[in-house]
Formats: sequence, structure tokens, C-alpha cells
Amino acid sequence: MTVRLEGKPVAAATDRRTREAIGSRRDLPAPSLVSVHRAVESPFRFYLRRQAQAAAAVGVEFRDVSLAAGDGPAELVARMAALDRDPSVHAVLLEHPLPAPLDFFAATSTLRPEKDVDGVGATNLGRLVAQRPTHVPAVARAALAIARQYGLPISGARVAVVGRSETVGLPLALCLAGRADGMNATVTVAHSRTPSLTRALADATTIFSCVGRPGLLDRSVVPEGAAVVDVGLSSVPDPSAKGGARAAGDADPVSLEGWAGALTPVPGGVGPVTVAELMAGALRARDLQLPAREPR
Amino acid sequence: MTVRLEGKPVAAATDRRTREAIGSRRDLPAPSLVSVHRAVESPFRFYLRRQAQAAAAVGVEFRDVSLAAGDGPAELVARMAALDRDPSVHAVLLEHPLPAPLDFFAATSTLRPEKDVDGVGATNLGRLVAQRPTHVPAVARAALAIARQYGLPISGARVAVVGRSETVGLPLALCLAGRADGMNATVTVAHSRTPSLTRALADATTIFSCVGRPGLLDRSVVPEGAAVVDVGLSSVPDPSAKGGARAAGDADPVSLEGWAGALTPVPGGVGPVTVAELMAGALRARDLQLPAREPR
Repeated sequence: MTVRLEGKPVAAATDRRTREAIGSRRDLPAPSLVSVHRAVESPFRFYLRRQAQAAAAVGVEFRDVSLAAGDGPAELVARMAALDRDPSVHAVLLEHPLPAPLDFFAATSTLRPEKDVDGVGATNLGRLVAQRPTHVPAVARAALAIARQYGLPISGARVAVVGRSETVGLPLALCLAGRADGMNATVTVAHSRTPSLTRALADATTIFSCVGRPGLLDRSVVPEGAAVVDVGLSSVPDPSAKGGARAAGDADPVSLEGWAGALTPVPGGVGPVTVAELMAGALRARDLQLPAREPR
Repeated sequence: MTVRLEGKPVAAATDRRTREAIGSRRDLPAPSLVSVHRAVESPFRFYLRRQAQAAAAVGVEFRDVSLAAGDGPAELVARMAALDRDPSVHAVLLEHPLPAPLDFFAATSTLRPEKDVDGVGATNLGRLVAQRPTHVPAVARAALAIARQYGLPISGARVAVVGRSETVGLPLALCLAGRADGMNATVTVAHSRTPSLTRALADATTIFSCVGRPGLLDRSVVPEGAAVVDVGLSSVPDPSAKGGARAAGDADPVSLEGWAGALTPVPGGVGPVTVAELMAGALRARDLQLPAREPR
């Protein structure tokens, strides 16, 4: 039997901690999170709605900022810089991916690390390499929270990360290989140029897939009994679904049923935990920016 | 037969390019490199002498700055900040490791990324994660230069990095797994908490060892025929050697002779190439800091 690693209970526990921490300090300003995005239909819009809901539920002040249609890289950087200067804003998130010539990395790198709540700017990524993170990408934190909650083998285990993006795969690999939280995994990073995914994953007891290609992981590549944390998120056509499309991860759940030891569903796995980790990040961002005299 | 991967010819080729690039632009200021160190006996002093020799040979202006005996973390940061402001200095290197409470990462992170010639501050490490490096640690560049020069399998190959330091192992793994220079390796990061190094390395065709533990790699852990780039550097007691000690890498060359496909010697492998890459870095640092009007 393949254990289904539900994200909702993990998200609920995280949200409870965040809500209680905010509620216990009414004397402090509520954490304030701003999401910056293009005002167009995109997968990010779904995430945006979830952010607003989760923020209201835990007590984070949330607002979204639309880029103007004609905004180029310079206007984007100027908007980020303005939010960085605004003392009423604790945490800033930027839509990802952005189409060229907009430059996600340059834009997020203009934020001070305490406000770069998703930990994707240069300073935060560098601090992660040095094992002194300020903020770690919420999706990486979410994948690790699920692994921890369900006791998946990480410490001292062979773990594989499929995908090498700077926003998901590499930060996750850096966390897993590091000492923090007793991770200490032996990590293999595989990607689109790996000739045989089957061979690359053969020794893995836990696999994190972060590619965004539905069906990539089936029983021909996943070793029998391995746990799969599915971080991929794609939209696939489905005439029976609302809007004609449904969310899909990298794993083929039909193929892996009865083969993988455990699997996170998509939707309902890493996704809800990511939103919860983002809210926890907004709280952390506020606490990092309290005036030095404030008790913490 | 185990091919001996000599570093000196690789270093000589790099030095020749650096010398010619500097010599061809006598109208520009010579690249200026400052090495900051404690004024005490340490393995870094040997590296310092090599830096001075190499700088003189290629046309880099080199000077070293001694920390005062009583300098604490604040004084160190102040010294780095002063060098960062000094327009006559293009590149700054800091002794590593430093004893607590001196904070190597905090000190190098105060440098602007163009001057942080060894690429070990927060911004440079983050840019490396994002696959947009300014400077990459010289020792990582050296290990990759040897691999490239001798045609070791990297692209599309299974490659292992032993060691997860933020100054060597992790930057090297990030380079190997990345797209830059057509690397595209499937990379496994092993370390002190890897239960079985033999199993972790079993599939590797090229192994980079960056631990600093002599004898770590012998034929019980290296798969037959694999290439080993030995980045480790330790001092081991040897009554017959000058000073009673000799340099040793992580590999046991006696055990690996006739077993490994190829091996870099220590000394004479990665070491000389590292010095050459540092000089090339000083040149790059100067070019990155030329006034915008200057032709490059």
C-alpha cells in the first residue's frame, strides 16, 4: 500500500502555530505581506487567492500589488525598492516565473533579506549555502515539513532531488545536504540532462520532484518502496474538470499506487503547506524587523 | 594504470592567458589584489607566498594586510569595509578558516560582489545558486579546470562531491549540477554524515573530494576506473620532510594506483591551479570595476 501524505493536516498545524504567535502579541503590528504580480491570468493567481484566504485566517495583513501592463525591468525594480523602504511592509513576495525581459532574480535581490520572505534573492540564497539562512523558499520548507511530519527517511539517508531551479530544486538540495534541523542527507541532484533518471534514483529512499512535468515519475524510475514528495505543479487539460483543466504533479499516482512507499497528492500535498509556510515566513519577517528594543 | 592529472600545465596555461590579458592593456591600472590574514603561522601563509609569486609573474599588484593580534569581528569587518571603499583595490581575499569569534562569512559578505574575488560572500554564493555567478571560489574553478583540461566525464555523467563546506564542496556541487560551461552533471553530495561512502560513490565516474582527511579515499570506497580530483589539503607529520610535515590530499595514492582511472597529485594538483585561478579572478575583478566608459 502506498501511504498518502496529506498536506492539509501539516498546513493546519503550521497555521495554528502562526495564528497563536500573532494572537499572543496584539501589542505588536500584525505581520504585513505584500504579493506583487502581473495583473494577468496565470497559475500564480490561484496561489494569490490562497494567500489572501490563509492570511485572513491566521492574522497576517495581506495585500497584492499589480504591475502595470507596460512595466519593464526598471519599473519592477523600482516597485520592489519602494516596498523595501516602506516600514509598514514586513514581507514581499513576487510572482514567479515572470516573462522576459522582467528579471525575477534581479528584482527580488533588491529586497533586504529580512523582507525577501521567499528567500529567493541573492543574499538569502547565499546565506542558505553558508547554512545561515534568513528565509528559505516556502515551497522547500513545505516539502521538508511534510517529510518531517510523516517521518520520511532524510538524516543519513540517500535522498534525490529532481530539478535544479534556483527557486525550488537547488534550495531544497542545500537544505537536505545541510546540518540544520539534523537533515544530513546524502543528496543526489538530477535534472533534465540526467541521461537515466532510473539510475539516478536507484538508491534513493526519499525523492523530491520539482520539475513540473506530469508523469515524469512512474514505477519505471521510482525504486519500489521509496517515498515521493511531489513538488511539481502543472495544469493539464481535463474536460471533466472546472475550467477544463486540473492540477497535476510530477508523479503518476496510478502507476505509483502500490509501488511507492508513500506519495504526496497533487492537489492537497505540498501546495497547502507552502501557503502555510509563507504565512509563517511573514511572521518571521516581522519579528526580524522589530525595533531592537522590542521584546521578542 | 592510473593517469596522473598534473596541475602545473593547467596553471601555466591559465597564467599565460592572465599575463597576456594584463600585458595587452598597459593603459589600464594593473589588477590589484589584497590578501587579509592573521599574522600567525598557518597553512594560509604558504598559500600567501604562492600568491605573491604568482602575482609577480602575471602582473597583478599584490599586497597582504595583517590583522592586529587583538582584532575582533568588528575590527575585521571594518578592515574589509575600508578595502571595499578603496578604489585602488580591485580584489580582496580573506584567510580561511578563521578562529572564532572572527566570522569569515560575515566579513567577506561586507565586500561588494565584484571585489569578493573568491566568491564566498553571501551575494556571490547566491548568484551561484541562481546560475549567474560573478566570482566562483578559486578552488572550485581550479578543480573544474583540471577536469575540463583532462577531459574527465562531467556532462551527463554521475559525479560525486565529498564535503559540504560553503567555501568548497557546495559551490563545486552547484557548478557541476548547473548549465554553465555545459556542466550538466548528475551530482551526489556526500559528507561526514553519509553512512556509507562506498555506496554513495558507487555510481560516480568522477569524484571531487574536499574534506581534508588524508586517506579518506582508497580503493575500498572509490569505484574501479573512476577519476579522482583531490581538493583536500592537510598537513601530515613526516620526519623525512622539511619542517617535519608534508602536504597530503584526501586520496591515498598508494591504494588508488592501478585502481583509479585518474588522480590529481597532492601537492601539484589542484593547488597550483587554485593560485592561477585567483590571479585570473583578480583580472576579472578589475574588468568588472572599470569605469563604464572604458573599452573592455
